[in-house]
Formats: sequence, C-alpha cells, structure tokens
Amino acid sequence: MSGASGEANATIACLQFEPSFGDSETNLEQAAGLLEEAHRAGANLAVLPELFDSGYVFTSREEAFGLATSVEASPTIERLQEAARGMDMYIVAGFAERDGDRLYNSAAVIGPGGLIGVYRKNHLWAEEALYFEPGDRGFPVYATRIGRIAPLICYDGWFPESWRRCGLGGADIVCVPTNWVPMPGQRDDLPAMANILCLAGAHSNGVFVAAACRTGTERGQPFIGQSLIVGPQGWPLAGPASRDERAVLVAHCNLADARRARALNAFNHVLRDRRSDVYGELATRS
Amino acid sequence: MSGASGEANATIACLQFEPSFGDSETNLEQAAGLLEEAHRAGANLAVLPELFDSGYVFTSREEAFGLATSVEASPTIERLQEAARGMDMYIVAGFAERDGDRLYNSAAVIGPGGLIGVYRKNHLWAEEALYFEPGDRGFPVYATRIGRIAPLICYDGWFPESWRRCGLGGADIVCVPTNWVPMPGQRDDLPAMANILCLAGAHSNGVFVAAACRTGTERGQPFIGQSLIVGPQGWPLAGPASRDERAVLVAHCNLADARRARALNAFNHVLRDRRSDVYGELATRS
Repeated sequence: MSGASGEANATIACLQFEPSFGDSETNLEQAAGLLEEAHRAGANLAVLPELFDSGYVFTSREEAFGLATSVEASPTIERLQEAARGMDMYIVAGFAERDGDRLYNSAAVIGPGGLIGVYRKNHLWAEEALYFEPGDRGFPVYATRIGRIAPLICYDGWFPESWRRCGLGGADIVCVPTNWVPMPGQRDDLPAMANILCLAGAHSNGVFVAAACRTGTERGQPFIGQSLIVGPQGWPLAGPASRDERAVLVAHCNLADARRARALNAFNHVLRDRRSDVYGELATRS
Repeated sequence: MSGASGEANATIACLQFEPSFGDSETNLEQAAGLLEEAHRAGANLAVLPELFDSGYVFTSREEAFGLATSVEASPTIERLQEAARGMDMYIVAGFAERDGDRLYNSAAVIGPGGLIGVYRKNHLWAEEALYFEPGDRGFPVYATRIGRIAPLICYDGWFPESWRRCGLGGADIVCVPTNWVPMPGQRDDLPAMANILCLAGAHSNGVFVAAACRTGTERGQPFIGQSLIVGPQGWPLAGPASRDERAVLVAHCNLADARRARALNAFNHVLRDRRSDVYGELATRS
C-alpha cells in the first residue's frame, strides 16, 4: 500500500499550431516536428488539434469530401502510427474521416501498437452540419497502458454531458482536439470561455483535460489558440498557451492521484455524489 | 415583433454578509437592512445566503434541530414574506427547515403574494450529511411574474446535472443561496472554483445565475464570499464581491435576451443541441 506518486504517470503534451488549409503534407510535417519536440520533453501522450490535417473552413461538400480520408487508407493515420511506434507514444489527433458517403469530424486514438479507436464528434458546430454527420459512436473510453483516455472534440465541451460520459466511463484523461473560435462577450480579465468549460469539466469529474487548439485565421474565421492541460482539481497544469503562437505544452500527471482526488472528504466524491434518482431522464424542454 | 430590451426585465440583487451562529434575530435584522438596500437600488429579486438565519457549522443533531423551523411556523419565512409584500419583491433565501423529524438544508422562494415554494438541497456537503436529509423534491422551476426562477444550493453547483435540470426546466434565473468554502489548489490568478462553476453553468444553459455567499469564519470553518451575478453567456454582470465584506450586488437583466441568446447561430442552440440519443442514462461507474 502506497500513496506515493510515480505509480501511474503520464506525461501529456498539447501541440498548438496553424494548419494550412488543404495541404495535408505540410500539416503532417508540422505535426511530426511538434511530436518530436514533445517526445524530447518526455511526453508519452500527445494531442493534436481538430482537423489538423485538412484545415477547418470548407466551402463545399465536394471540397470536404476531397480532403477527407478513410481510416483504412489515410496517410494521416499511417504517419501518426509510425510516429507513435517510433517514439513509444500515444497520440490523439483530429482528422476528416470519410466512411463511404459519410464524413465525420473525428479523432484518432493511436498507440505504440497502432490504431486503438476513432471517436466521431457528437456535437457539430455551425457549418460543420453542412458537411459532417453527427457522431454515432457514443463517448468511448480507451483503456491503455498509461491510463484510460477519452476523446472529445471542440463544441462537445459545451455540453457537460460529454465530460460526464467520459468521467462515468472511467476516463483518467480527456483529450480534446479543438478549433476554438471567439465567443461573444469574452472578457479580457477572465480565461477564454472554452478554457473555463475545460476547468469545470475537469473539476466536476476529477479528470485530466488536455486540449490542443489551432491558431491563425482561415478564410476569415479566426481561431483562439489557448491550448491547455488541466489537473483533476480543475486548475491548469500547463497553459493556456498564447492566442497565436505555435506551442508545445507539457505536464507530468499522476493518474493515481486523480483517482484518489475524486474523494473530496469522508462524505463526498465528485462522481458518487450524483443524485441519479432526481436527475430524471434529463429529457428535453427548450 | 421587436428585439428591443425592456420587454422582460428583472433587477437582481445578491446579498452577502456574515451571519451570527444561532442568532436568527440578528441575522433577520441584517437581512432586512440588506433587502432594503437592494430595494432602493431597484431590485425586484433578491438572494440571501444558505442557512442565513441559523448559521452553518452545527456540532450536534440536537443543535441543528433546535435552530431549524417548519415552514408553517418559521419566523424567518414570516419576516421575509412581510418584506417581499412591503417591497413588491421576490426573495430566495436559505434556511434550516424542519419537517417532523427530518431536517433539510432548504431555500424558500417568496413573492409579493407570499411563499411560492421550498427547494431542498439535493447534494449535501461534508458534515451536512450528519444533520440533513438529502432533498426529495427534484429541481423545481417556479414561474413568476418576472420570469422563471430555479433555486440551487452551494454544492448542488458542483454537479452539472443541477444546472441542466434548471435549464431544461425552462429556468431564466438560477438563484443560489450558498456558503462556499475554500477549494484545494485555488489559484490567485483565476476566479474561485465556485465562481467558475457558475460561469460554466450559466453559459452551458443560457441562464442568469445569482449566487449569494456568506463571509466570515464560523467555528474554524472559513467561507469565501465572492458572490456574483452571471449573464446567460457566462460572463459576470456584477461581482465577484470581496472575500470578506458585506455586499449588495445588483444587476439589471433582460430575460428575453437570455431566451434569445440560447440560439448561438443558424445551426446551434445550447439546449437543443443536446445529444440525448448518445448520453445513455448517465448511469454510474465511479
């Protein structure tokens, strides 16, 4: 019996950069450089932004279909698998997934042994609804050698149910490839609303959150950077990164501490105190 | 058809002070002064802290029973009803409720016409579990002349399900009598975690949040003040108040704007975008 740290460690990296629209070769090269930097910093889990290989602002279905790839024939997945194998690392990365005539805004979860799973964004933001199908795989939690990893993508984080599904699924680390955009009313003296939602999601579920955002303006749409890594008490461990610069954020995380920290005192536990008996079905009236 | 403001206004006040343990007469006098100040500032809805009439740190069941009152014979409710009638105001106030041999950590919702309802805290914090029964009335939303009011109390706010039940119940304003205590790891350069959870709850549901906290240290337990009023985009409209001073926070709120603001763009709506089809039953594994 031991309360010592070191018993379940992950070193998490969030990789922030500006993808070039439609230029997956350049984007993969940029990602490769960032992954190596993360590896040199000791990371064994790295998160890349949403749709990092294709860019985000499509203007037609044709364009979106042209930039999406099937898991089986994706140069992106292949290159990330090579990197994961070569550096003995886990990688969570957003990519445009094609499955027959359907497109998904997806996140690949890749380990040293290859592809582990693909999460499909459940909550589509704005014009994404014109190109992508809503996710159809629920909220998977992947048990890996370093701990349990659950992906969410961008607008998923606006729904506390997303964080909760990950928490109740046993996740230790929620990895969030994202392309956050400015929110109305953002205050300069407070964190970005996207960051606030990560802090609350981490605190309310006792999980680590690793969110990797892109930077830059694409076809008139600005993105806000500010990637961050949050601990299970809801406080940033690394970041937020700047609004517009390339960044490699790294945090050493004791996952055992997180599982213990969910017990707040002799009476309270962030997950077990849920009153499922009074939440009803959380059905709709809006 | 009009988008003009002024069509559904509430002026909300949060009243922050330090109750004296076990001295309900003094506490009611303090509250009366604060309510008058709020009234002079134009408030038609005022929120008082959790257990403002009794104090918080009980040391025995006997003591807790001695300081709790039944709704029918509560000097606290009676005095608040007089104030609400006299000032044409709505009041949400925490009190120790006795119902036969059961105690509840409750919030009375009172209007100019008298008592509207009593909410019983669903999530009990720490030693509260020794004295109080968990709430047994779900998450009521009270339709009033000024708008729909839903009470939550303190630790309820740690559970995103609480905010969601209010939002899906149609709440415009979530009123939170609270006795927030310090949270581990609190950072000086970030808002109190309790405040962060209010910002996230407001933003994710498009509701106003009015949280009134107490100050002071009682029997060794410090409380953190920092009451605040949050708008439906998740940004503070008033406060956070100081950590230790008496305060009357006031914000003018257009409830019609809040209902409109839940539509984020042509595709997205904070409540209607919920993916109930993939949330499962949000059942337990922890």
